[in-house]
Amino acid sequence: MTSTPGTPPVELLVCTTCRAGLPTDAPAPRPGARLHDALAGLDLPERVILRGVECLSNCDRGCSIVLRGGPGRWTYVYGNFTGPDDAELIRDVAARYEQTADGLIPWRERPPHFRKNCITRIPPQEIPE
Amino acid sequence: MTSTPGTPPVELLVCTTCRAGLPTDAPAPRPGARLHDALAGLDLPERVILRGVECLSNCDRGCSIVLRGGPGRWTYVYGNFTGPDDAELIRDVAARYEQTADGLIPWRERPPHFRKNCITRIPPQEIPE
Repeated sequence: MTSTPGTPPVELLVCTTCRAGLPTDAPAPRPGARLHDALAGLDLPERVILRGVECLSNCDRGCSIVLRGGPGRWTYVYGNFTGPDDAELIRDVAARYEQTADGLIPWRERPPHFRKNCITRIPPQEIPE
Repeated sequence: MTSTPGTPPVELLVCTTCRAGLPTDAPAPRPGARLHDALAGLDLPERVILRGVECLSNCDRGCSIVLRGGPGRWTYVYGNFTGPDDAELIRDVAARYEQTADGLIPWRERPPHFRKNCITRIPPQEIPE
């Protein structure tokens, strides 16, 4: 798998405050933080930048991630991850996203969780006609 | 109400393909398109740019809008609008969003619909520490 020439790097944002439905008195670290730490421990592609963020406001359907990558790519928000067990799947999709110029991964190449748990998508800054 | 000096203009994106739960054989135009047209008929602030977009992938909780405005503002996705009757409320919130430097409208200033129907929010390109 190779990068798309000339495209910006990709950001993989992980909501580290997500409880994923656990009660407020559940022991730390939270599922979102554990997912972030699991991703940080993987061999991510060079042009996929992992960043932890506070509250993506998708609390009812977390854990949540965002994939974005410059003005020419669609931004995607995915939810309903359970925690660190999803890290490798997310890594693989982030790598595939990085290979696109527009952020659109062909439907047949999206793992079932990503087909079923897209929270929203936001057009590129340069909105296609 | 005045703009925040030096901030980029704001985009108000409206999903024009949204059916808002109506059956597929309901007569056109769709609720999303009608919401867009109602907003287009209002006197929007000069620095709020209305754009229709196809499918924000929030179909279960549409009609949907996005507020975004340059690299320094949080992006917000709001849902569960019913159609053109929501246009004036959306116009007012877009105007308030445009006055912010970071996209964060104080909680007490958010109308109830916007408090209850935030689908997700995405950090600025320049993520605050």
